[in-house]
Amino acid sequence: MKGEKNMKRYKGYLVDLDGTMYKGKIRIEGAAEFVEHLEGKGLPFLYLTNNSSKTADQIADKLNHMGVRAKPEQVYTSSLATAEYISSEKPEARVFAIGEEGLFDALEKKGLKLVKERADFVVMGIDHDISYEKLARACLEVRAGAALVSTNGDIAIPTERGLVPGNGALTSVISVSTGVSPIFVGKPEPLIMSRALKRLGYEKEEVLMVGDNYNTDIKAGMTAGLDTLMVETGLSTFEEIKHYDHQPTYKYKDLHEWMRR
Amino acid sequence: MKGEKNMKRYKGYLVDLDGTMYKGKIRIEGAAEFVEHLEGKGLPFLYLTNNSSKTADQIADKLNHMGVRAKPEQVYTSSLATAEYISSEKPEARVFAIGEEGLFDALEKKGLKLVKERADFVVMGIDHDISYEKLARACLEVRAGAALVSTNGDIAIPTERGLVPGNGALTSVISVSTGVSPIFVGKPEPLIMSRALKRLGYEKEEVLMVGDNYNTDIKAGMTAGLDTLMVETGLSTFEEIKHYDHQPTYKYKDLHEWMRR
Repeated sequence: MKGEKNMKRYKGYLVDLDGTMYKGKIRIEGAAEFVEHLEGKGLPFLYLTNNSSKTADQIADKLNHMGVRAKPEQVYTSSLATAEYISSEKPEARVFAIGEEGLFDALEKKGLKLVKERADFVVMGIDHDISYEKLARACLEVRAGAALVSTNGDIAIPTERGLVPGNGALTSVISVSTGVSPIFVGKPEPLIMSRALKRLGYEKEEVLMVGDNYNTDIKAGMTAGLDTLMVETGLSTFEEIKHYDHQPTYKYKDLHEWMRR
Repeated sequence: MKGEKNMKRYKGYLVDLDGTMYKGKIRIEGAAEFVEHLEGKGLPFLYLTNNSSKTADQIADKLNHMGVRAKPEQVYTSSLATAEYISSEKPEARVFAIGEEGLFDALEKKGLKLVKERADFVVMGIDHDISYEKLARACLEVRAGAALVSTNGDIAIPTERGLVPGNGALTSVISVSTGVSPIFVGKPEPLIMSRALKRLGYEKEEVLMVGDNYNTDIKAGMTAGLDTLMVETGLSTFEEIKHYDHQPTYKYKDLHEWMRR
Protein backbone atom coordinates (compact mmCIF):
# COMPACT_ATOMS: atom_id res chain seq x y z
CA MET A 1 0.00 0.00 0.00
CA LYS A 2 2.57 2.51 -1.12
CA GLY A 3 1.83 5.86 -2.68
CA GLU A 4 -0.79 6.78 -0.12
CA LYS A 5 1.00 9.98 0.87
CA ASN A 6 -2.08 11.91 -0.08
CA MET A 7 -4.26 9.75 2.10
CA LYS A 8 -7.24 11.55 3.46
CA ARG A 9 -6.94 12.92 6.98
CA TYR A 10 -9.83 12.07 9.22
CA LYS A 11 -11.18 14.27 12.00
CA GLY A 12 -12.59 11.40 14.03
CA TYR A 13 -12.45 7.63 14.34
CA LEU A 14 -14.87 4.84 15.20
CA VAL A 15 -12.90 1.89 16.50
CA ASP A 16 -14.17 -1.64 16.92
CA LEU A 17 -13.12 -3.55 20.04
CA ASP A 18 -13.28 -7.34 19.72
CA GLY A 19 -10.71 -8.44 17.12
CA THR A 20 -9.38 -4.89 16.76
CA MET A 21 -8.37 -3.80 20.28
CA TYR A 22 -8.49 -7.19 22.03
CA LYS A 23 -9.24 -10.85 21.63
CA GLY A 24 -10.99 -12.13 24.72
CA LYS A 25 -8.70 -10.97 27.50
CA ILE A 26 -5.65 -10.39 25.35
CA ARG A 27 -4.71 -6.99 23.93
CA ILE A 28 -4.05 -6.95 20.22
CA GLU A 29 -0.68 -5.88 18.91
CA GLY A 30 -0.68 -2.16 18.12
CA ALA A 31 -3.94 -1.37 19.92
CA ALA A 32 -2.45 0.67 22.77
CA GLU A 33 -0.09 2.52 20.42
CA PHE A 34 -2.90 3.33 18.00
CA VAL A 35 -4.96 4.91 20.75
CA GLU A 36 -1.95 6.89 22.01
CA HIS A 37 -1.33 8.00 18.42
CA LEU A 38 -4.91 9.31 18.13
CA GLU A 39 -4.74 11.04 21.49
CA GLY A 40 -1.33 12.49 20.68
CA LYS A 41 -2.79 14.12 17.60
CA GLY A 42 -5.89 15.26 19.47
CA LEU A 43 -8.13 13.16 17.24
CA PRO A 44 -11.44 12.25 18.89
CA PHE A 45 -12.66 8.68 18.63
CA LEU A 46 -15.27 6.29 19.99
CA TYR A 47 -14.91 2.63 20.73
CA LEU A 48 -17.87 1.10 18.92
CA THR A 49 -19.00 -2.34 20.00
CA ASN A 50 -21.94 -4.68 19.41
CA ASN A 51 -21.34 -6.06 22.90
CA SER A 52 -24.58 -5.29 24.74
CA SER A 53 -23.81 -7.08 27.98
CA LYS A 54 -21.38 -4.63 29.56
CA THR A 55 -21.74 -0.99 30.55
CA ALA A 56 -19.45 1.67 29.11
CA ASP A 57 -17.74 1.87 32.52
CA GLN A 58 -17.06 -1.84 32.57
CA ILE A 59 -15.64 -1.80 29.06
CA ALA A 60 -13.44 1.24 29.77
CA ASP A 61 -12.15 -0.57 32.87
CA LYS A 62 -11.34 -3.63 30.83
CA LEU A 63 -9.44 -1.59 28.26
CA ASN A 64 -7.50 0.33 30.90
CA HIS A 65 -6.57 -2.92 32.65
CA MET A 66 -5.15 -4.13 29.35
CA GLY A 67 -3.14 -0.98 28.96
CA VAL A 68 -5.41 0.61 26.33
CA ARG A 69 -6.47 4.08 27.42
CA ALA A 70 -10.22 4.57 27.56
CA LYS A 71 -12.78 6.76 29.26
CA PRO A 72 -16.37 5.54 29.68
CA GLU A 73 -17.65 8.38 27.48
CA GLN A 74 -15.45 7.05 24.67
CA VAL A 75 -17.31 3.73 24.66
CA TYR A 76 -20.47 3.39 22.59
CA THR A 77 -22.25 0.05 22.82
CA SER A 78 -25.21 -1.44 20.96
CA SER A 79 -27.12 -1.18 24.25
CA LEU A 80 -26.55 2.57 24.45
CA ALA A 81 -27.62 2.98 20.83
CA THR A 82 -30.68 0.78 21.44
CA ALA A 83 -31.76 2.83 24.44
CA GLU A 84 -31.31 6.07 22.46
CA TYR A 85 -33.25 4.68 19.53
CA ILE A 86 -36.20 3.58 21.65
CA SER A 87 -36.22 6.83 23.59
CA SER A 88 -36.28 8.78 20.31
CA GLU A 89 -39.20 6.67 19.08
CA LYS A 90 -41.15 6.96 22.32
CA PRO A 91 -39.77 8.71 25.39
CA GLU A 92 -40.61 6.85 28.61
CA ALA A 93 -41.68 3.81 26.59
CA ARG A 94 -42.59 0.61 28.39
CA VAL A 95 -39.90 -1.96 27.59
CA PHE A 96 -39.72 -5.68 28.23
CA ALA A 97 -36.01 -6.44 27.98
CA ILE A 98 -33.99 -9.63 27.85
CA GLY A 99 -30.29 -9.03 28.33
CA GLU A 100 -27.51 -8.35 30.79
CA GLU A 101 -26.32 -5.44 32.88
CA GLY A 102 -25.19 -3.26 29.98
CA LEU A 103 -28.63 -3.29 28.42
CA PHE A 104 -30.69 -2.78 31.58
CA ASP A 105 -28.37 0.02 32.69
CA ALA A 106 -28.63 1.80 29.33
CA LEU A 107 -32.44 1.52 29.20
CA GLU A 108 -32.89 2.78 32.75
CA LYS A 109 -30.52 5.71 32.28
CA LYS A 110 -32.59 6.81 29.29
CA GLY A 111 -35.70 6.90 31.48
CA LEU A 112 -37.38 3.91 29.85
CA LYS A 113 -39.73 1.84 31.98
CA LEU A 114 -38.73 -1.78 32.43
CA VAL A 115 -41.92 -3.85 32.54
CA LYS A 116 -43.03 -7.46 32.23
CA GLU A 117 -46.31 -6.80 30.46
CA ARG A 118 -48.09 -4.34 28.18
CA ALA A 119 -44.73 -3.38 26.69
CA ASP A 120 -44.36 -0.95 23.78
CA PHE A 121 -41.06 -2.60 22.89
CA VAL A 122 -39.51 -5.98 23.41
CA VAL A 123 -35.74 -5.54 23.46
CA MET A 124 -33.41 -8.46 23.05
CA GLY A 125 -29.71 -8.45 23.92
CA ILE A 126 -27.35 -11.33 24.59
CA ASP A 127 -28.32 -13.09 27.80
CA HIS A 128 -26.23 -15.93 29.16
CA ASP A 129 -29.07 -16.59 31.58
CA ILE A 130 -31.68 -16.92 28.84
CA SER A 131 -34.72 -19.03 29.79
CA TYR A 132 -37.82 -20.42 28.14
CA GLU A 133 -39.99 -18.18 30.30
CA LYS A 134 -38.17 -15.03 29.13
CA LEU A 135 -38.55 -16.06 25.49
CA ALA A 136 -42.20 -16.98 26.02
CA ARG A 137 -42.93 -13.61 27.61
CA ALA A 138 -41.17 -11.85 24.72
CA CYS A 139 -43.29 -13.75 22.19
CA LEU A 140 -46.53 -12.99 24.04
CA GLU A 141 -45.67 -9.28 24.19
CA VAL A 142 -44.73 -9.15 20.49
CA ARG A 143 -47.95 -10.95 19.56
CA ALA A 144 -49.81 -8.40 21.69
CA GLY A 145 -48.31 -5.63 19.56
CA ALA A 146 -44.93 -4.68 21.03
CA ALA A 147 -42.24 -3.74 18.50
CA LEU A 148 -39.26 -6.09 18.46
CA VAL A 149 -35.83 -4.46 18.76
CA SER A 150 -32.58 -6.38 18.99
CA THR A 151 -29.26 -4.85 20.05
CA ASN A 152 -27.40 -6.68 17.29
CA GLY A 153 -27.73 -9.48 14.79
CA ASP A 154 -24.43 -11.29 15.36
CA ILE A 155 -25.12 -14.96 14.77
CA ALA A 156 -22.00 -16.24 16.55
CA ILE A 157 -19.45 -15.09 19.11
CA PRO A 158 -15.85 -16.30 18.98
CA THR A 159 -14.67 -17.80 22.29
CA GLU A 160 -11.81 -20.04 23.41
CA ARG A 161 -14.18 -23.01 22.89
CA GLY A 162 -15.23 -21.97 19.38
CA LEU A 163 -18.20 -20.11 17.95
CA VAL A 164 -21.15 -19.95 20.33
CA PRO A 165 -24.57 -18.36 19.66
CA GLY A 166 -24.71 -14.60 19.32
CA ASN A 167 -27.65 -12.35 19.97
CA GLY A 168 -28.91 -12.59 16.41
CA ALA A 169 -29.32 -16.35 16.84
CA LEU A 170 -31.14 -15.93 20.16
CA THR A 171 -33.39 -13.24 18.67
CA SER A 172 -34.49 -15.70 15.99
CA VAL A 173 -36.53 -17.63 18.57
CA ILE A 174 -38.82 -14.62 18.86
CA SER A 175 -38.86 -13.68 15.19
CA VAL A 176 -39.41 -17.26 13.98
CA SER A 177 -42.13 -17.91 16.55
CA THR A 178 -44.05 -14.68 16.00
CA GLY A 179 -43.28 -13.98 12.35
CA VAL A 180 -42.27 -10.43 13.32
CA SER A 181 -38.95 -9.16 11.98
CA PRO A 182 -36.70 -7.46 14.52
CA ILE A 183 -35.23 -4.00 14.15
CA PHE A 184 -31.50 -4.56 14.65
CA VAL A 185 -29.51 -1.66 16.05
CA GLY A 186 -25.84 -2.74 16.14
CA LYS A 187 -23.28 -2.96 13.35
CA PRO A 188 -23.72 -3.40 10.37
CA GLU A 189 -27.00 -1.49 10.75
CA PRO A 190 -27.08 2.26 10.12
CA LEU A 191 -28.95 2.92 13.39
CA ILE A 192 -25.86 2.60 15.56
CA MET A 193 -23.67 4.45 13.03
CA SER A 194 -25.78 7.58 12.78
CA ARG A 195 -25.92 7.82 16.57
CA ALA A 196 -22.19 7.24 16.95
CA LEU A 197 -21.42 9.97 14.39
CA LYS A 198 -23.74 12.35 16.18
CA ARG A 199 -22.04 11.63 19.49
CA LEU A 200 -18.62 12.11 17.90
CA GLY A 201 -19.83 15.36 16.36
CA TYR A 202 -18.55 14.83 12.82
CA GLU A 203 -20.03 14.11 9.42
CA LYS A 204 -19.62 10.71 7.81
CA GLU A 205 -17.04 12.03 5.34
CA GLU A 206 -14.82 13.14 8.21
CA VAL A 207 -14.68 9.84 10.09
CA LEU A 208 -12.85 6.54 9.55
CA MET A 209 -14.39 3.27 10.70
CA VAL A 210 -11.74 0.81 11.93
CA GLY A 211 -12.44 -2.87 12.44
CA ASP A 212 -11.60 -6.50 11.75
CA ASN A 213 -14.98 -7.97 10.89
CA TYR A 214 -16.05 -7.45 7.29
CA ASN A 215 -19.69 -8.33 7.90
CA THR A 216 -20.19 -6.02 10.84
CA ASP A 217 -17.53 -3.29 11.07
CA ILE A 218 -16.70 -2.78 7.43
CA LYS A 219 -20.25 -3.19 6.16
CA ALA A 220 -21.47 -0.79 8.85
CA GLY A 221 -18.96 1.81 7.69
CA MET A 222 -19.76 1.32 4.02
CA THR A 223 -23.52 1.41 4.52
CA ALA A 224 -23.27 4.58 6.55
CA GLY A 225 -21.01 6.22 3.96
CA LEU A 226 -17.75 6.25 5.94
CA ASP A 227 -14.30 5.31 4.76
CA THR A 228 -13.18 2.05 6.31
CA LEU A 229 -9.94 0.51 7.52
CA MET A 230 -9.91 -3.27 7.81
CA VAL A 231 -7.27 -4.98 9.92
CA GLU A 232 -6.53 -8.68 9.87
CA THR A 233 -6.18 -9.16 13.61
CA GLY A 234 -9.62 -10.64 14.20
CA LEU A 235 -12.24 -12.56 12.29
CA SER A 236 -12.06 -11.70 8.57
CA THR A 237 -9.06 -12.21 6.29
CA PHE A 238 -8.10 -10.28 3.17
CA GLU A 239 -8.01 -13.60 1.32
CA GLU A 240 -11.66 -14.38 2.05
CA ILE A 241 -12.88 -10.93 1.02
CA LYS A 242 -10.67 -10.46 -2.03
CA HIS A 243 -13.43 -11.19 -4.55
CA TYR A 244 -16.10 -9.12 -2.80
CA ASP A 245 -17.53 -6.29 -4.86
CA HIS A 246 -17.15 -3.78 -2.07
CA GLN A 247 -13.69 -3.46 -0.59
CA PRO A 248 -12.62 -1.55 2.50
CA THR A 249 -11.03 1.82 1.76
CA TYR A 250 -7.82 0.57 3.40
CA LYS A 251 -6.55 -2.87 4.29
CA TYR A 252 -3.63 -3.19 6.72
CA LYS A 253 -2.43 -6.31 8.48
CA ASP A 254 -2.57 -4.59 11.85
CA LEU A 255 -2.64 -1.14 13.42
CA HIS A 256 1.16 -0.98 13.59
CA GLU A 257 1.26 -1.25 9.82
CA TRP A 258 -1.43 1.39 9.53
CA MET A 259 0.53 3.85 11.68
CA ARG A 260 3.74 3.04 9.84
CA ARG A 261 2.27 3.65 6.37
CA MET B 1 -71.09 -33.30 3.00
CA LYS B 2 -73.90 -35.50 1.78
CA GLY B 3 -73.62 -38.24 -0.80
CA GLU B 4 -70.57 -39.76 0.82
CA LYS B 5 -72.24 -43.12 1.23
CA ASN B 6 -69.52 -44.62 -0.89
CA MET B 7 -66.85 -43.12 1.29
CA LYS B 8 -63.70 -45.14 1.36
CA ARG B 9 -63.25 -47.49 4.30
CA TYR B 10 -59.89 -47.23 5.99
CA LYS B 11 -58.06 -50.08 7.63
CA GLY B 12 -56.13 -47.87 10.05
CA TYR B 13 -56.09 -44.36 11.48
CA LEU B 14 -53.46 -41.87 12.56
CA VAL B 15 -55.01 -39.51 15.07
CA ASP B 16 -53.55 -36.21 16.24
CA LEU B 17 -53.83 -35.33 19.92
CA ASP B 18 -53.61 -31.60 20.69
CA GLY B 19 -56.65 -29.88 19.14
CA THR B 20 -58.14 -33.22 18.08
CA MET B 21 -58.39 -35.32 21.25
CA TYR B 22 -57.78 -32.61 23.84
CA LYS B 23 -57.01 -28.96 24.37
CA GLY B 24 -54.58 -28.54 27.24
CA LYS B 25 -56.24 -30.57 29.98
CA ILE B 26 -59.72 -30.61 28.47
CA ARG B 27 -61.06 -33.49 26.38
CA ILE B 28 -62.51 -32.44 23.06
CA GLU B 29 -66.13 -33.22 22.27
CA GLY B 30 -66.43 -36.54 20.42
CA ALA B 31 -62.88 -37.70 21.18
CA ALA B 32 -63.76 -40.54 23.55
CA GLU B 33 -66.63 -41.71 21.34
CA PHE B 34 -64.46 -41.68 18.22
CA VAL B 35 -61.89 -43.93 19.87
CA GLU B 36 -64.64 -46.28 21.12
CA HIS B 37 -66.05 -46.31 17.60
CA LEU B 38 -62.67 -47.36 16.16
CA GLU B 39 -62.15 -50.00 18.81
CA GLY B 40 -65.69 -51.26 18.39
CA LYS B 41 -64.98 -51.88 14.72
CA GLY B 42 -61.59 -53.38 15.45
CA LEU B 43 -59.84 -50.67 13.50
CA PRO B 44 -56.21 -50.14 14.58
CA PHE B 45 -54.95 -46.62 15.13
CA LEU B 46 -52.05 -44.63 16.51
CA TYR B 47 -52.13 -41.37 18.36
CA LEU B 48 -49.60 -39.28 16.46
CA THR B 49 -48.15 -36.26 18.23
CA ASN B 50 -45.34 -33.76 17.71
CA ASN B 51 -45.10 -33.47 21.50
CA SER B 52 -41.57 -34.63 22.27
CA SER B 53 -41.55 -33.89 25.98
CA LYS B 54 -43.63 -36.78 27.29
CA THR B 55 -43.18 -40.54 27.06
CA ALA B 56 -45.81 -42.74 25.44
CA ASP B 57 -46.73 -43.98 28.94
CA GLN B 58 -47.27 -40.47 30.22
CA ILE B 59 -49.43 -39.54 27.24
CA ALA B 60 -51.52 -42.73 27.50
CA ASP B 61 -52.03 -41.96 31.20
CA LYS B 62 -53.17 -38.46 30.38
CA LEU B 63 -55.67 -39.74 27.80
CA ASN B 64 -57.04 -42.40 30.13
CA HIS B 65 -57.45 -39.84 32.90
CA MET B 66 -59.52 -37.78 30.50
CA GLY B 67 -61.68 -40.76 29.65
CA VAL B 68 -60.08 -41.41 26.23
CA ARG B 69 -58.92 -45.02 26.00
CA ALA B 70 -55.25 -45.37 25.17
CA LYS B 71 -52.44 -47.90 25.55
CA PRO B 72 -48.80 -46.73 25.52
CA GLU B 73 -48.13 -48.73 22.36
CA GLN B 74 -50.86 -46.73 20.61
CA VAL B 75 -48.95 -43.49 21.16
CA TYR B 76 -46.33 -42.45 18.62
CA THR B 77 -44.43 -39.26 19.44
CA SER B 78 -41.92 -37.19 17.49
CA SER B 79 -39.34 -38.32 20.05
CA LEU B 80 -39.95 -41.99 19.28
CA ALA B 81 -39.74 -41.27 15.55
CA THR B 82 -36.54 -39.26 16.07
CA ALA B 83 -34.90 -42.06 18.05
CA GLU B 84 -35.89 -44.59 15.37
CA TYR B 85 -34.62 -42.34 12.61
CA ILE B 86 -31.22 -41.82 14.26
CA SER B 87 -30.87 -45.48 15.11
CA SER B 88 -31.60 -46.40 11.49
CA GLU B 89 -28.96 -43.92 10.31
CA LYS B 90 -26.36 -45.07 12.81
CA PRO B 91 -27.08 -47.67 15.47
CA GLU B 92 -25.48 -46.80 18.81
CA ALA B 93 -24.79 -43.26 17.57
CA ARG B 94 -23.40 -40.69 19.98
CA VAL B 95 -26.13 -38.11 20.57
CA PHE B 96 -26.04 -34.74 22.28
CA ALA B 97 -29.69 -34.07 23.10
CA ILE B 98 -31.58 -31.06 24.34
CA GLY B 99 -35.10 -31.89 25.44
CA GLU B 100 -37.29 -33.35 28.14
CA GLU B 101 -38.06 -36.80 29.52
CA GLY B 102 -39.89 -38.07 26.45
CA LEU B 103 -36.87 -37.47 24.23
CA PHE B 104 -34.19 -38.81 26.56
CA ASP B 105 -36.28 -41.87 27.30
CA ALA B 106 -36.84 -42.59 23.59
CA LEU B 107 -33.16 -42.15 22.71
CA GLU B 108 -31.95 -44.38 25.54
CA LYS B 109 -34.46 -47.13 24.78
CA LYS B 110 -33.15 -47.25 21.21
CA GLY B 111 -29.64 -47.85 22.56
CA LEU B 112 -28.28 -44.46 21.53
CA LYS B 113 -25.43 -43.03 23.59
CA LEU B 114 -26.20 -39.74 25.29
CA VAL B 115 -23.01 -37.68 25.29
CA LYS B 116 -21.88 -34.11 25.80
CA GLU B 117 -19.10 -34.10 23.22
CA ARG B 118 -17.95 -35.72 20.00
CA ALA B 119 -21.57 -36.32 19.07
CA ASP B 120 -22.65 -37.82 15.74
CA PHE B 121 -26.02 -36.10 16.13
CA VAL B 122 -27.30 -33.06 17.93
CA VAL B 123 -30.98 -33.62 18.68
CA MET B 124 -33.25 -30.79 19.66
CA GLY B 125 -36.65 -31.19 21.29
CA ILE B 126 -38.72 -28.71 23.28
CA ASP B 127 -36.99 -27.92 26.56
CA HIS B 128 -38.65 -25.67 29.12
CA ASP B 129 -35.33 -25.66 30.94
CA ILE B 130 -33.38 -24.45 27.89
CA SER B 131 -30.14 -22.61 28.71
CA TYR B 132 -27.44 -20.70 26.89
CA GLU B 133 -24.92 -23.40 27.78
CA LYS B 134 -27.05 -26.14 26.18
CA LEU B 135 -27.46 -24.08 23.01
CA ALA B 136 -23.75 -23.22 22.96
CA ARG B 137 -22.79 -26.89 23.30
CA ALA B 138 -25.20 -27.79 20.49
CA CYS B 139 -23.64 -25.16 18.21
CA LEU B 140 -20.09 -26.32 19.00
CA GLU B 141 -21.02 -29.94 18.25
CA VAL B 142 -22.76 -29.02 14.99
CA ARG B 143 -19.78 -26.92 13.93
CA ALA B 144 -17.57 -29.91 14.77
CA GLY B 145 -19.59 -31.98 12.30
CA ALA B 146 -22.58 -33.43 14.15
CA ALA B 147 -25.81 -33.69 12.12
CA LEU B 148 -28.65 -31.52 13.40
CA VAL B 149 -31.96 -33.29 13.98
CA SER B 150 -35.02 -31.62 15.47
CA THR B 151 -38.06 -33.51 16.75
CA ASN B 152 -40.44 -31.02 15.14
CA GLY B 153 -40.57 -27.61 13.54
CA ASP B 154 -43.61 -26.15 15.32
CA ILE B 155 -42.96 -22.43 15.69
CA ALA B 156 -45.55 -21.85 18.40
CA ILE B 157 -47.51 -23.78 21.02
CA PRO B 158 -51.02 -22.70 22.04
CA THR B 159 -51.38 -22.26 25.81
CA GLU B 160 -53.84 -20.55 28.15
CA ARG B 161 -51.54 -17.48 28.00
CA GLY B 162 -51.35 -17.41 24.20
CA LEU B 163 -48.83 -18.68 21.66
CA VAL B 164 -45.42 -19.43 23.17
CA PRO B 165 -42.29 -20.64 21.34
CA GLY B 166 -42.35 -24.14 19.90
CA ASN B 167 -39.42 -26.38 19.21
CA GLY B 168 -38.97 -25.06 15.68
CA ALA B 169 -38.35 -21.60 17.08
CA LEU B 170 -35.85 -22.90 19.65
CA THR B 171 -34.08 -24.96 16.99
CA SER B 172 -33.52 -21.78 14.97
CA VAL B 173 -30.90 -20.63 17.48
CA ILE B 174 -28.69 -23.52 16.36
CA SER B 175 -29.51 -23.35 12.66
CA VAL B 176 -29.12 -19.55 12.46
CA SER B 177 -25.89 -19.58 14.44
CA THR B 178 -24.24 -22.45 12.56
CA GLY B 179 -25.83 -22.07 9.13
CA VAL B 180 -26.71 -25.80 9.22
CA SER B 181 -30.29 -26.73 8.34
CA PRO B 182 -31.98 -29.16 10.70
CA ILE B 183 -33.60 -32.41 9.68
CA PHE B 184 -37.10 -32.14 11.15
CA VAL B 185 -38.80 -35.40 12.04
CA GLY B 186 -42.33 -34.52 13.24
CA LYS B 187 -45.42 -33.56 11.28
CA PRO B 188 -45.65 -32.27 8.54
CA GLU B 189 -42.43 -34.09 7.62
CA PRO B 190 -42.61 -37.48 5.91
CA LEU B 191 -40.08 -39.01 8.35
CA ILE B 192 -42.60 -39.45 11.15
CA MET B 193 -45.35 -40.55 8.75
CA SER B 194 -43.45 -43.39 7.12
CA ARG B 195 -42.47 -44.72 10.54
CA ALA B 196 -46.01 -44.42 11.89
CA LEU B 197 -47.41 -46.31 8.89
CA LYS B 198 -44.83 -49.03 9.35
CA ARG B 199 -45.74 -49.38 13.01
CA LEU B 200 -49.43 -49.50 12.14
CA GLY B 201 -48.69 -52.11 9.49
CA TYR B 202 -50.70 -50.60 6.63
CA GLU B 203 -50.00 -48.87 3.35
CA LYS B 204 -50.63 -45.16 2.94
CA GLU B 205 -53.72 -45.79 0.80
CA GLU B 206 -55.28 -47.76 3.63
CA VAL B 207 -54.91 -45.14 6.37
CA LEU B 208 -56.69 -41.91 7.26
CA MET B 209 -54.85 -39.07 8.93
CA VAL B 210 -57.09 -37.17 11.39
CA GLY B 211 -56.19 -33.78 12.79
CA ASP B 212 -57.04 -30.13 13.40
CA ASN B 213 -53.87 -28.37 12.28
CA TYR B 214 -53.65 -27.78 8.54
CA ASN B 215 -49.95 -26.97 8.57
CA THR B 216 -48.88 -30.03 10.52
CA ASP B 217 -51.50 -32.81 10.52
CA ILE B 218 -53.15 -32.26 7.16
CA LYS B 219 -49.94 -31.37 5.32
CA ALA B 220 -48.25 -34.40 6.85
CA GLY B 221 -51.01 -36.64 5.57
CA MET B 222 -51.03 -35.06 2.12
CA THR B 223 -47.25 -35.16 1.73
CA ALA B 224 -47.15 -38.81 2.76
CA GLY B 225 -49.97 -39.67 0.35
CA LEU B 226 -52.71 -40.40 2.91
CA ASP B 227 -56.32 -39.27 2.83
CA THR B 228 -56.97 -36.66 5.48
CA LEU B 229 -59.80 -35.65 7.78
CA MET B 230 -59.66 -32.13 9.15
CA VAL B 231 -61.72 -31.21 12.20
CA GLU B 232 -62.33 -27.68 13.40
CA THR B 233 -61.83 -28.33 17.10
CA GLY B 234 -58.30 -26.96 17.33
CA LEU B 235 -56.09 -24.48 15.53
CA SER B 236 -57.12 -24.22 11.86
CA THR B 237 -60.51 -23.17 10.54
CA PHE B 238 -62.22 -24.13 7.27
CA GLU B 239 -62.60 -20.43 6.56
CA GLU B 240 -58.86 -19.76 6.66
CA ILE B 241 -58.00 -22.73 4.43
CA LYS B 242 -60.84 -22.33 1.93
CA HIS B 243 -58.68 -20.80 -0.80
CA TYR B 244 -55.76 -23.20 -0.37
CA ASP B 245 -54.91 -25.27 -3.43
CA HIS B 246 -54.74 -28.47 -1.48
CA GLN B 247 -57.80 -29.35 0.56
CA PRO B 248 -58.24 -32.14 3.11
CA THR B 249 -60.05 -35.20 1.77
CA TYR B 250 -62.79 -34.59 4.37
CA LYS B 251 -63.74 -31.61 6.49
CA TYR B 252 -66.03 -32.11 9.48
CA LYS B 253 -66.70 -29.69 12.30
CA ASP B 254 -65.87 -32.32 14.91
CA LEU B 255 -65.59 -36.07 15.33
CA HIS B 256 -69.25 -36.41 16.28
CA GLU B 257 -70.19 -35.05 12.86
CA TRP B 258 -67.72 -37.41 11.24
CA MET B 259 -69.22 -40.45 12.96
CA ARG B 260 -72.75 -39.27 12.18
CA ARG B 261 -72.07 -38.78 8.44
